[in-house]
Amino acid sequence: MRPPARSLELTQVTEWNGGSAHTVQDSLAAEEPLEIRVNGVPLTVTMRTPGNDRELAAGLLLTEGIVDSREQLAQIRAAAPDSPRSNLVDVQLKDCEFTPEDRHRSFFSASGCGICGKASIEAIRHRALRPPNRSFHIAPHVLYSLPDVLRARQAVFERTGGLHAAALFDAQGNLIAVREDIGRHNAVDKLAGWALLEGLVPLSTHALLVSGRGGFEIVQKALAAGVPLLASVSAPSSLAVKLARELGLTLIGFLRGERFVVYSGEFRCVPEVLEPMEHTGIQR
Amino acid sequence: MRPPARSLELTQVTEWNGGSAHTVQDSLAAEEPLEIRVNGVPLTVTMRTPGNDRELAAGLLLTEGIVDSREQLAQIRAAAPDSPRSNLVDVQLKDCEFTPEDRHRSFFSASGCGICGKASIEAIRHRALRPPNRSFHIAPHVLYSLPDVLRARQAVFERTGGLHAAALFDAQGNLIAVREDIGRHNAVDKLAGWALLEGLVPLSTHALLVSGRGGFEIVQKALAAGVPLLASVSAPSSLAVKLARELGLTLIGFLRGERFVVYSGEFRCVPEVLEPMEHTGIQR
Repeated sequence: MRPPARSLELTQVTEWNGGSAHTVQDSLAAEEPLEIRVNGVPLTVTMRTPGNDRELAAGLLLTEGIVDSREQLAQIRAAAPDSPRSNLVDVQLKDCEFTPEDRHRSFFSASGCGICGKASIEAIRHRALRPPNRSFHIAPHVLYSLPDVLRARQAVFERTGGLHAAALFDAQGNLIAVREDIGRHNAVDKLAGWALLEGLVPLSTHALLVSGRGGFEIVQKALAAGVPLLASVSAPSSLAVKLARELGLTLIGFLRGERFVVYSGEFRCVPEVLEPMEHTGIQR
Repeated sequence: MRPPARSLELTQVTEWNGGSAHTVQDSLAAEEPLEIRVNGVPLTVTMRTPGNDRELAAGLLLTEGIVDSREQLAQIRAAAPDSPRSNLVDVQLKDCEFTPEDRHRSFFSASGCGICGKASIEAIRHRALRPPNRSFHIAPHVLYSLPDVLRARQAVFERTGGLHAAALFDAQGNLIAVREDIGRHNAVDKLAGWALLEGLVPLSTHALLVSGRGGFEIVQKALAAGVPLLASVSAPSSLAVKLARELGLTLIGFLRGERFVVYSGEFRCVPEVLEPMEHTGIQR
Protein backbone atom coordinates (compact mmCIF):
# COMPACT_ATOMS: atom_id res chain seq x y z
CA MET A 1 0.00 0.00 0.00
CA ARG A 2 1.38 3.40 -0.96
CA PRO A 3 1.76 5.89 1.91
CA PRO A 4 0.20 9.36 1.44
CA ALA A 5 2.42 12.12 0.03
CA ARG A 6 4.65 13.85 2.62
CA SER A 7 4.05 11.16 5.27
CA LEU A 8 7.67 9.99 4.95
CA GLU A 9 10.99 11.84 4.96
CA LEU A 10 14.34 10.37 4.00
CA THR A 11 17.46 11.27 5.94
CA GLN A 12 21.02 10.10 6.50
CA VAL A 13 21.78 8.58 9.91
CA THR A 14 24.54 6.67 11.68
CA GLU A 15 23.78 3.12 12.77
CA TRP A 16 25.83 1.60 15.59
CA ASN A 17 25.90 -2.17 15.72
CA GLY A 18 28.14 -3.75 18.35
CA GLY A 19 31.51 -2.04 18.03
CA SER A 20 31.14 -0.41 14.63
CA ALA A 21 29.21 2.44 13.04
CA HIS A 22 28.13 3.04 9.47
CA THR A 23 26.07 5.59 7.60
CA VAL A 24 22.67 4.54 6.27
CA GLN A 25 19.60 6.09 4.69
CA ASP A 26 16.52 6.03 6.93
CA SER A 27 12.80 6.81 6.54
CA LEU A 28 11.26 9.07 9.18
CA ALA A 29 7.57 9.40 9.91
CA ALA A 30 6.74 12.99 9.06
CA GLU A 31 5.49 15.24 11.85
CA GLU A 32 4.28 18.76 11.11
CA PRO A 33 1.95 21.18 12.89
CA LEU A 34 -1.58 21.55 11.52
CA GLU A 35 -3.59 24.63 12.41
CA ILE A 36 -7.34 24.05 12.45
CA ARG A 37 -9.57 27.11 12.06
CA VAL A 38 -13.32 27.17 12.54
CA ASN A 39 -15.18 29.93 10.69
CA GLY A 40 -11.80 31.67 10.31
CA VAL A 41 -10.99 31.56 14.05
CA PRO A 42 -7.91 29.54 15.09
CA LEU A 43 -9.11 26.59 17.18
CA THR A 44 -5.99 24.55 17.82
CA VAL A 45 -2.67 23.40 16.44
CA THR A 46 -1.94 19.70 16.50
CA MET A 47 1.27 17.90 15.58
CA ARG A 48 0.30 15.38 12.95
CA THR A 49 1.59 13.30 10.06
CA PRO A 50 0.57 15.14 6.86
CA GLY A 51 -2.20 13.44 4.91
CA ASN A 52 -5.99 13.16 5.40
CA ASP A 53 -5.98 16.64 6.96
CA ARG A 54 -9.63 17.39 6.13
CA GLU A 55 -10.61 14.13 7.83
CA LEU A 56 -8.47 15.00 10.83
CA ALA A 57 -10.18 18.38 11.22
CA ALA A 58 -13.67 16.91 10.80
CA GLY A 59 -12.86 14.07 13.20
CA LEU A 60 -11.46 16.37 15.86
CA LEU A 61 -14.61 18.53 15.74
CA LEU A 62 -16.71 15.37 16.08
CA THR A 63 -14.78 13.59 18.81
CA GLU A 64 -14.38 16.77 20.86
CA GLY A 65 -18.11 17.46 20.75
CA ILE A 66 -18.11 20.61 18.59
CA VAL A 67 -20.24 19.00 15.87
CA ASP A 68 -22.25 15.78 15.88
CA SER A 69 -23.36 15.45 12.28
CA ARG A 70 -22.04 15.94 8.76
CA GLU A 71 -24.80 18.46 8.11
CA GLN A 72 -23.15 20.97 10.44
CA LEU A 73 -20.08 21.13 8.19
CA ALA A 74 -20.60 23.63 5.37
CA GLN A 75 -17.08 23.41 3.94
CA ILE A 76 -13.64 22.11 4.85
CA ARG A 77 -10.80 23.77 2.95
CA ALA A 78 -7.28 22.37 2.91
CA ALA A 79 -4.50 23.63 0.65
CA ALA A 80 -2.63 21.33 -1.74
CA PRO A 81 0.21 19.33 -0.12
CA ASP A 82 2.87 21.43 -1.86
CA SER A 83 1.28 24.78 -0.98
CA PRO A 84 2.87 27.05 1.66
CA ARG A 85 -0.49 26.93 3.43
CA SER A 86 -0.54 23.15 3.49
CA ASN A 87 -0.48 23.10 7.30
CA LEU A 88 -3.81 24.89 7.60
CA VAL A 89 -7.38 23.57 7.43
CA ASP A 90 -10.35 25.93 7.60
CA VAL A 91 -13.75 24.53 8.54
CA GLN A 92 -16.91 26.54 7.88
CA LEU A 93 -19.83 25.53 10.09
CA LYS A 94 -23.39 25.79 8.74
CA ASP A 95 -25.84 28.12 10.51
CA CYS A 96 -23.40 28.39 13.35
CA GLU A 97 -21.34 31.35 14.40
CA PHE A 98 -18.02 30.70 16.05
CA THR A 99 -16.92 33.54 18.30
CA PRO A 100 -13.72 34.16 20.24
CA GLU A 101 -15.65 33.10 23.36
CA ASP A 102 -16.45 29.80 21.69
CA ARG A 103 -12.83 29.58 20.77
CA HIS A 104 -11.83 30.03 24.37
CA ARG A 105 -14.36 27.45 25.48
CA SER A 106 -13.18 25.11 22.76
CA PHE A 107 -9.61 25.31 23.93
CA PHE A 108 -10.84 23.66 27.06
CA SER A 109 -12.49 20.82 25.21
CA ALA A 110 -10.76 20.46 21.88
CA SER A 111 -7.02 20.32 21.99
CA GLY A 112 -5.22 17.79 19.86
CA CYS A 113 -5.00 15.24 22.61
CA GLY A 114 -8.48 15.65 23.93
CA ILE A 115 -7.98 16.46 27.52
CA CYS A 116 -4.99 18.68 27.99
CA GLY A 117 -6.03 22.27 27.53
CA LYS A 118 -9.02 21.86 29.82
CA ALA A 119 -8.72 24.27 32.71
CA SER A 120 -10.94 22.59 35.24
CA ILE A 121 -11.41 19.01 36.28
CA GLU A 122 -15.17 19.47 36.35
CA ALA A 123 -15.17 20.21 32.64
CA ILE A 124 -13.88 16.78 31.76
CA ARG A 125 -17.10 14.94 32.48
CA HIS A 126 -19.26 17.73 31.15
CA ARG A 127 -19.69 16.33 27.67
CA ALA A 128 -22.86 14.62 26.55
CA LEU A 129 -21.75 11.16 25.49
CA ARG A 130 -24.37 8.54 24.69
CA PRO A 131 -24.25 4.78 25.39
CA PRO A 132 -23.42 2.94 22.13
CA ASN A 133 -25.50 0.28 20.33
CA ARG A 134 -26.13 -2.67 22.65
CA SER A 135 -27.10 -5.10 19.90
CA PHE A 136 -23.64 -5.18 18.29
CA HIS A 137 -21.92 -8.51 18.91
CA ILE A 138 -18.64 -10.02 17.83
CA ALA A 139 -17.12 -13.50 18.17
CA PRO A 140 -13.75 -13.99 19.90
CA HIS A 141 -12.24 -15.74 16.86
CA VAL A 142 -13.10 -12.65 14.79
CA LEU A 143 -11.38 -10.39 17.35
CA TYR A 144 -8.27 -12.60 17.32
CA SER A 145 -7.91 -11.99 13.57
CA LEU A 146 -8.05 -8.17 13.62
CA PRO A 147 -4.44 -7.20 14.53
CA ASP A 148 -2.97 -9.26 11.68
CA VAL A 149 -5.37 -7.68 9.20
CA LEU A 150 -4.40 -4.21 10.45
CA ARG A 151 -0.67 -4.89 10.29
CA ALA A 152 -0.94 -6.16 6.72
CA ARG A 153 -2.57 -2.89 5.68
CA GLN A 154 -0.39 -0.40 7.53
CA ALA A 155 1.36 1.61 4.87
CA VAL A 156 3.99 3.62 6.68
CA PHE A 157 4.65 1.89 9.96
CA GLU A 158 6.84 -0.88 8.59
CA ARG A 159 9.22 1.60 7.03
CA THR A 160 9.49 3.95 9.97
CA GLY A 161 8.45 2.05 13.08
CA GLY A 162 6.97 5.33 14.16
CA LEU A 163 3.27 5.52 13.36
CA HIS A 164 0.14 4.64 15.24
CA ALA A 165 -2.84 3.16 13.43
CA ALA A 166 -6.59 3.06 13.97
CA ALA A 167 -8.89 0.75 12.00
CA LEU A 168 -12.60 0.11 11.66
CA PHE A 169 -13.96 -3.42 11.22
CA ASP A 170 -17.45 -4.82 10.86
CA ALA A 171 -18.75 -7.67 13.08
CA GLN A 172 -17.46 -10.24 10.58
CA GLY A 173 -13.92 -8.87 10.84
CA ASN A 174 -13.89 -7.15 7.46
CA LEU A 175 -11.59 -4.15 7.40
CA ILE A 176 -13.56 -1.00 6.55
CA ALA A 177 -10.87 1.71 6.83
CA VAL A 178 -7.40 2.41 8.31
CA ARG A 179 -5.70 5.68 9.16
CA GLU A 180 -2.16 6.25 10.42
CA ASP A 181 -0.54 9.11 12.30
CA ILE A 182 2.38 9.86 14.55
CA GLY A 183 -0.21 10.63 17.25
CA ARG A 184 -2.55 7.97 18.61
CA HIS A 185 -5.35 10.50 18.98
CA ASN A 186 -4.91 11.81 15.46
CA ALA A 187 -5.15 8.33 13.92
CA VAL A 188 -8.55 7.93 15.63
CA ASP A 189 -9.65 11.43 14.63
CA LYS A 190 -8.72 10.86 10.97
CA LEU A 191 -10.74 7.65 10.98
CA ALA A 192 -13.71 9.28 12.74
CA GLY A 193 -13.53 12.22 10.33
CA TRP A 194 -13.54 9.88 7.35
CA ALA A 195 -16.61 8.13 8.75
CA LEU A 196 -18.35 11.46 9.43
CA LEU A 197 -17.71 12.71 5.89
CA GLU A 198 -18.94 9.36 4.49
CA GLY A 199 -22.17 9.66 6.48
CA LEU A 200 -21.37 6.58 8.60
CA VAL A 201 -21.59 8.25 12.04
CA PRO A 202 -22.72 6.98 14.54
CA LEU A 203 -20.54 3.93 13.84
CA SER A 204 -23.00 1.68 15.65
CA THR A 205 -22.10 -1.55 13.86
CA HIS A 206 -18.31 -1.17 13.91
CA ALA A 207 -15.38 -2.20 16.07
CA LEU A 208 -12.46 0.21 16.47
CA LEU A 209 -8.94 -1.21 16.81
CA VAL A 210 -6.06 1.03 17.90
CA SER A 211 -2.35 0.21 17.87
CA GLY A 212 -1.53 2.05 21.10
CA ARG A 213 -3.08 2.15 24.52
CA GLY A 214 -6.81 2.48 25.10
CA GLY A 215 -6.59 5.49 27.40
CA PHE A 216 -9.35 7.79 28.65
CA GLU A 217 -9.24 10.13 25.68
CA ILE A 218 -9.43 7.30 23.16
CA VAL A 219 -12.49 5.94 24.97
CA GLN A 220 -14.03 9.43 24.85
CA LYS A 221 -13.38 9.66 21.11
CA ALA A 222 -14.79 6.18 20.46
CA LEU A 223 -17.98 7.10 22.33
CA ALA A 224 -18.30 10.41 20.46
CA ALA A 225 -18.11 8.48 17.17
CA GLY A 226 -20.77 6.02 18.41
CA VAL A 227 -18.51 2.96 18.28
CA PRO A 228 -19.78 0.07 20.48
CA LEU A 229 -16.43 -1.75 20.80
CA LEU A 230 -12.87 -0.46 21.26
CA ALA A 231 -9.96 -2.90 21.17
CA SER A 232 -6.26 -2.28 21.67
CA VAL A 233 -3.17 -4.43 21.62
CA SER A 234 -2.02 -2.83 24.88
CA ALA A 235 -3.33 -1.85 28.32
CA PRO A 236 -6.16 0.55 29.14
CA SER A 237 -5.98 2.97 32.06
CA SER A 238 -8.14 2.97 35.18
CA LEU A 239 -10.11 6.00 33.98
CA ALA A 240 -10.62 4.50 30.52
CA VAL A 241 -12.18 1.42 32.14
CA LYS A 242 -14.34 3.56 34.43
CA LEU A 243 -15.73 5.66 31.56
CA ALA A 244 -16.28 2.58 29.36
CA ARG A 245 -18.23 0.88 32.17
CA GLU A 246 -20.33 3.99 32.88
CA LEU A 247 -21.39 4.32 29.25
CA GLY A 248 -21.54 0.61 28.34
CA LEU A 249 -18.72 0.59 25.77
CA THR A 250 -17.02 -2.76 25.22
CA LEU A 251 -13.35 -2.18 26.04
CA ILE A 252 -10.80 -4.83 25.11
CA GLY A 253 -7.07 -4.81 25.82
CA PHE A 254 -4.01 -6.98 25.17
CA LEU A 255 -5.48 -8.34 21.92
CA ARG A 256 -2.53 -10.53 20.90
CA GLY A 257 -2.59 -13.93 19.26
CA GLU A 258 -5.53 -15.99 20.55
CA ARG A 259 -5.98 -13.94 23.70
CA PHE A 260 -7.61 -10.73 24.90
CA VAL A 261 -8.89 -9.15 28.10
CA VAL A 262 -12.40 -7.66 28.37
CA TYR A 263 -12.50 -4.70 30.74
CA SER A 264 -16.06 -3.59 30.08
CA GLY A 265 -19.21 -4.63 28.18
CA GLU A 266 -18.36 -8.31 27.86
CA PHE A 267 -21.93 -9.04 26.73
CA ARG A 268 -20.90 -8.01 23.20
CA CYS A 269 -18.34 -10.84 22.98
CA VAL A 270 -20.37 -13.93 22.14
CA PRO A 271 -18.92 -17.37 21.42
CA GLU A 272 -18.95 -18.38 17.81
CA VAL A 273 -22.37 -18.92 16.26
CA LEU A 274 -23.51 -22.55 16.57
CA GLU A 275 -23.48 -24.71 13.46
CA PRO A 276 -26.86 -24.63 11.64
CA MET A 277 -27.14 -28.41 12.14
CA GLU A 278 -27.44 -27.97 15.88
CA HIS A 279 -30.29 -25.55 15.44
CA THR A 280 -32.38 -28.17 13.63
CA GLY A 281 -32.30 -30.48 16.62
CA ILE A 282 -30.67 -33.24 14.55
CA GLN A 283 -27.60 -33.94 16.63
CA ARG A 284 -25.12 -36.86 16.56
CA MET B 1 10.57 -1.57 43.76
CA ARG B 2 7.34 -0.40 45.36
CA PRO B 3 5.05 1.66 43.12
CA PRO B 4 3.77 5.01 44.51
CA ALA B 5 0.40 5.03 46.30
CA ARG B 6 -2.63 5.21 43.97
CA SER B 7 -0.57 4.40 40.86
CA LEU B 8 -2.32 1.01 40.54
CA GLU B 9 -5.98 -0.03 40.65
CA LEU B 10 -7.26 -3.59 40.93
CA THR B 11 -10.31 -4.69 38.96
CA GLN B 12 -12.09 -7.83 37.83
CA VAL B 13 -11.90 -8.60 34.11
CA THR B 14 -12.71 -11.41 31.68
CA GLU B 15 -9.82 -13.05 29.89
CA TRP B 16 -10.49 -14.88 26.62
CA ASN B 17 -7.96 -17.48 25.63
CA GLY B 18 -8.71 -19.49 22.51
CA GLY B 19 -12.29 -20.74 22.88
CA SER B 20 -12.81 -20.16 26.59
CA ALA B 21 -13.26 -17.21 28.95
CA HIS B 22 -12.57 -16.89 32.65
CA THR B 23 -12.67 -14.13 35.25
CA VAL B 24 -9.39 -12.83 36.61
CA GLN B 25 -8.12 -9.98 38.81
CA ASP B 26 -6.10 -7.37 36.89
CA SER B 27 -3.95 -4.35 37.80
CA LEU B 28 -4.65 -1.14 35.92
CA ALA B 29 -2.32 1.80 35.62
CA ALA B 30 -4.13 4.66 37.35
CA GLU B 31 -5.05 7.69 35.26
CA GLU B 32 -6.57 10.77 36.89
CA PRO B 33 -6.74 14.45 35.94
CA LEU B 34 -4.36 16.85 37.67
CA GLU B 35 -5.14 20.54 37.68
CA ILE B 36 -2.06 22.76 37.87
CA ARG B 37 -2.56 26.30 39.15
CA VAL B 38 0.02 29.06 39.04
CA ASN B 39 -0.40 31.83 41.65
CA GLY B 40 -3.97 30.57 42.07
CA VAL B 41 -4.82 30.79 38.36
CA PRO B 42 -5.71 27.50 36.60
CA LEU B 43 -3.01 26.80 34.03
CA THR B 44 -3.87 23.37 32.65
CA VAL B 45 -5.32 19.97 33.40
CA THR B 46 -3.28 16.96 32.44
CA MET B 47 -4.24 13.29 32.64
CA ARG B 48 -1.56 11.64 34.70
CA THR B 49 -0.77 8.67 36.92
CA PRO B 50 -1.00 9.91 40.53
CA GLY B 51 2.33 10.23 42.32
CA ASN B 52 5.18 12.77 42.13
CA ASP B 53 2.62 15.50 41.40
CA ARG B 54 4.78 18.36 42.73
CA GLU B 55 7.59 17.21 40.43
CA LEU B 56 5.17 17.00 37.51
CA ALA B 57 4.02 20.58 38.07
CA ALA B 58 7.57 21.89 38.47
CA GLY B 59 8.72 19.93 35.42
CA LEU B 60 5.88 21.14 33.23
CA LEU B 61 6.64 24.77 34.13
CA LEU B 62 10.31 24.16 33.28
CA THR B 63 9.90 22.21 30.04
CA GLU B 64 7.22 24.58 28.76
CA GLY B 65 9.41 27.61 29.37
CA ILE B 66 7.42 29.28 32.16
CA VAL B 67 10.32 29.03 34.64
CA ASP B 68 13.97 28.22 34.08
CA SER B 69 15.35 27.95 37.60
CA ARG B 70 14.39 26.58 40.99
CA GLU B 71 14.68 30.07 42.48
CA GLN B 72 11.54 31.17 40.61
CA LEU B 73 9.45 28.66 42.53
CA ALA B 74 8.35 30.09 45.88
CA GLN B 75 6.12 27.16 46.90
CA ILE B 76 4.49 24.09 45.40
CA ARG B 77 1.48 22.83 47.34
CA ALA B 78 -0.05 19.41 46.75
CA ALA B 79 -2.67 17.82 48.98
CA ALA B 80 -2.18 14.40 50.60
CA PRO B 81 -2.98 11.44 48.30
CA ASP B 82 -6.19 10.62 50.21
CA SER B 83 -7.46 14.22 50.26
CA PRO B 84 -10.44 15.28 48.10
CA ARG B 85 -8.11 17.93 46.64
CA SER B 86 -5.46 15.39 45.73
CA ASN B 87 -5.82 16.18 42.01
CA LEU B 88 -4.72 19.78 42.43
CA VAL B 89 -1.25 21.33 42.63
CA ASP B 90 -0.79 25.04 43.28
CA VAL B 91 2.52 26.65 42.37
CA GLN B 92 3.47 30.06 43.76
CA LEU B 93 6.03 31.91 41.65
CA LYS B 94 8.53 34.22 43.35
CA ASP B 95 8.53 37.90 42.39
CA CYS B 96 6.35 37.06 39.45
CA GLU B 97 2.73 37.90 38.90
CA PHE B 98 0.65 35.52 36.86
CA THR B 99 -2.31 37.22 35.22
CA PRO B 100 -5.21 35.86 33.21
CA GLU B 101 -3.42 37.18 30.11
CA ASP B 102 -0.39 35.11 31.03
CA ARG B 103 -2.72 32.22 31.54
CA HIS B 104 -4.11 32.65 28.07
CA ARG B 105 -0.62 32.92 26.65
CA SER B 106 0.41 29.88 28.63
CA PHE B 107 -2.37 27.81 27.16
CA PHE B 108 -0.62 28.31 23.88
CA SER B 109 2.68 27.08 25.19
CA ALA B 110 2.04 24.85 28.14
CA SER B 111 -0.61 22.21 27.68
CA GLY B 112 0.02 18.77 29.06
CA CYS B 113 1.36 17.46 25.79
CA GLY B 114 3.47 20.46 24.95
CA ILE B 115 2.23 21.48 21.61
CA CYS B 116 -1.51 21.11 21.35
CA GLY B 117 -3.18 24.18 22.73
CA LYS B 118 -0.97 26.44 20.67
CA ALA B 119 -3.08 28.55 18.37
CA SER B 120 -0.57 29.46 15.74
CA ILE B 121 2.14 27.58 13.96
CA GLU B 122 4.50 30.52 14.34
CA ALA B 123 4.33 30.19 18.12
CA ILE B 124 5.85 26.75 18.08
CA ARG B 125 9.36 27.89 17.27
CA HIS B 126 9.07 30.98 19.42
CA ARG B 127 10.67 29.53 22.53
CA ALA B 128 14.23 30.32 23.53
CA LEU B 129 15.93 26.93 23.68
CA ARG B 130 19.70 26.77 24.10
CA PRO B 131 22.15 24.28 22.57
CA PRO B 132 23.13 21.70 25.22
CA ASN B 133 26.63 20.92 26.56
CA ARG B 134 28.92 19.87 23.68
CA SER B 135 31.56 18.25 25.87
CA PHE B 136 29.30 15.44 27.11
CA HIS B 137 30.33 12.11 25.57
CA ILE B 138 29.12 8.55 25.99
CA ALA B 139 30.40 5.21 24.70
CA PRO B 140 28.18 2.92 22.60
CA HIS B 141 28.58 -0.01 25.01
CA VAL B 142 27.26 2.22 27.79
CA LEU B 143 24.24 3.15 25.68
CA TYR B 144 23.54 -0.52 24.91
CA SER B 145 23.22 -1.21 28.63
CA LEU B 146 20.67 1.51 29.48
CA PRO B 147 17.33 -0.11 28.49
CA ASP B 148 17.97 -3.20 30.64
CA VAL B 149 18.83 -1.02 33.63
CA LEU B 150 15.62 0.96 33.14
CA ARG B 151 13.44 -2.14 32.79
CA ALA B 152 14.86 -3.63 35.97
CA ARG B 153 13.87 -0.51 37.87
CA GLN B 154 10.39 0.11 36.46
CA ALA B 155 8.00 -0.34 39.34
CA VAL B 156 4.56 -0.39 37.78
CA PHE B 157 4.98 -1.27 34.16
CA GLU B 158 5.46 -4.99 34.62
CA ARG B 159 2.19 -5.32 36.47
CA THR B 160 0.06 -3.22 34.15
CA GLY B 161 1.82 -3.10 30.79
CA GLY B 162 0.52 0.44 30.66
CA LEU B 163 3.12 2.94 31.81
CA HIS B 164 5.80 4.95 30.07
CA ALA B 165 9.11 5.59 31.78
CA ALA B 166 11.81 8.25 31.58
CA ALA B 167 15.23 7.83 33.17
CA LEU B 168 18.37 9.87 33.71
CA PHE B 169 21.83 8.31 33.45
CA ASP B 170 25.33 9.68 33.81
CA ALA B 171 28.02 9.14 31.14
CA GLN B 172 29.13 5.91 32.84
CA GLY B 173 25.62 4.45 32.57
CA ASN B 174 24.73 4.84 36.24
CA LEU B 175 21.00 5.30 36.77
CA ILE B 176 20.30 8.62 38.49
CA ALA B 177 16.48 8.67 38.59
CA VAL B 178 13.38 7.08 36.99
CA ARG B 179 9.81 8.33 36.74
CA GLU B 180 6.77 6.54 35.33
CA ASP B 181 3.45 7.80 34.00
CA ILE B 182 0.63 6.80 31.71
CA GLY B 183 1.68 9.74 29.52
CA ARG B 184 5.08 9.87 27.81
CA HIS B 185 5.28 13.61 28.30
CA ASN B 186 4.40 13.41 31.98
CA ALA B 187 7.13 10.85 32.69
CA VAL B 188 9.68 13.31 31.26
CA ASP B 189 8.12 16.25 33.13
CA LYS B 190 8.20 14.37 36.45
CA LEU B 191 11.87 13.59 35.91
CA ALA B 192 12.70 17.15 34.85
CA GLY B 193 10.75 18.49 37.83
CA TRP B 194 12.66 16.20 40.20
CA ALA B 195 15.94 17.47 38.73
CA LEU B 196 14.80 21.11 39.00
CA LEU B 197 13.81 20.73 42.65
CA GLU B 198 17.14 18.97 43.36
CA GLY B 199 19.06 21.86 41.80
CA LEU B 200 20.43 19.69 38.98
CA VAL B 201 19.11 21.76 36.05
CA PRO B 202 20.56 22.25 33.44
CA LEU B 203 21.19 18.51 33.21
CA SER B 204 24.32 19.07 31.18
CA THR B 205 26.09 15.82 32.10
CA HIS B 206 23.12 13.46 31.77
CA ALA B 207 21.55 11.23 29.17
CA LEU B 208 17.74 10.95 29.05
CA LEU B 209 16.18 7.61 28.06
CA VAL B 210 12.45 7.41 27.26
CA SER B 211 10.38 4.26 26.75
CA GLY B 212 8.23 5.68 23.96
CA ARG B 213 8.95 7.62 20.80
CA GLY B 214 11.32 10.57 20.68
CA GLY B 215 8.84 13.00 19.12
CA PHE B 216 9.12 16.76 18.69
CA GLU B 217 7.68 17.60 22.09
CA ILE B 218 10.02 15.23 23.92
CA VAL B 219 12.99 16.84 22.13
CA GLN B 220 11.66 20.26 23.18
CA LYS B 221 11.39 19.11 26.81
CA ALA B 222 14.88 17.56 26.77
CA LEU B 223 16.33 20.83 25.47
CA ALA B 224 14.46 22.87 28.07
CA ALA B 225 15.98 20.67 30.80
CA GLY B 226 19.44 21.12 29.26
CA VAL B 227 19.99 17.42 28.49
CA PRO B 228 22.70 16.84 25.83
CA LEU B 229 21.53 13.35 24.78
CA LEU B 230 18.05 11.87 24.29
CA ALA B 231 17.67 8.17 23.55
CA SER B 232 14.54 6.13 22.88
CA VAL B 233 13.81 2.50 22.13
CA SER B 234 11.58 3.56 19.24
CA ALA B 235 11.53 5.91 16.24
CA PRO B 236 11.82 9.71 16.26
CA SER B 237 9.72 11.91 13.98
CA SER B 238 10.97 14.12 11.16
CA LEU B 239 10.40 17.29 13.20
CA ALA B 240 12.13 15.83 16.25
CA VAL B 241 15.22 15.17 14.13
CA LYS B 242 15.05 18.64 12.61
CA LEU B 243 14.88 20.40 15.99
CA ALA B 244 17.62 18.17 17.47
CA ARG B 245 19.92 19.01 14.54
CA GLU B 246 19.18 22.75 14.77
CA LEU B 247 20.06 22.86 18.46
CA GLY B 248 22.81 20.24 18.50
CA LEU B 249 21.07 17.69 20.73
CA THR B 250 22.24 14.10 20.31
CA LEU B 251 19.13 12.13 19.31
CA ILE B 252 19.24 8.33 19.37
CA GLY B 253 16.48 5.92 18.33
CA PHE B 254 15.87 2.17 18.20
CA LEU B 255 18.16 1.52 21.16
CA ARG B 256 17.66 -2.25 21.36
CA GLY B 257 20.21 -4.91 22.19
CA GLU B 258 23.62 -4.01 20.73
CA ARG B 259 22.23 -1.55 18.21
CA PHE B 260 21.06 2.05 17.93
CA VAL B 261 20.58 4.74 15.31
CA VAL B 262 22.03 8.26 15.73
CA TYR B 263 19.82 10.89 14.12
CA SER B 264 21.66 13.96 15.34
CA GLY B 265 24.79 15.00 17.23
CA GLU B 266 26.78 11.83 16.63
CA PHE B 267 29.94 13.55 17.89
CA ARG B 268 28.83 12.73 21.44
CA CYS B 269 28.99 8.96 20.77
CA VAL B 270 32.64 8.05 21.09
CA PRO B 271 34.05 4.54 20.87
CA GLU B 272 35.10 3.04 24.16
CA VAL B 273 38.02 4.68 25.91
CA LEU B 274 41.32 3.01 24.97
CA GLU B 275 42.95 0.71 27.53
CA PRO B 276 45.44 2.58 29.75
CA MET B 277 48.19 0.25 28.52
CA GLU B 278 47.85 1.56 25.01
CA HIS B 279 48.32 5.11 26.25
CA THR B 280 51.71 4.25 27.69
CA GLY B 281 52.99 3.23 24.33
CA ILE B 282 53.95 -0.23 25.67
CA GLN B 283 52.19 -2.46 23.22
CA ARG B 284 52.60 -6.20 22.46
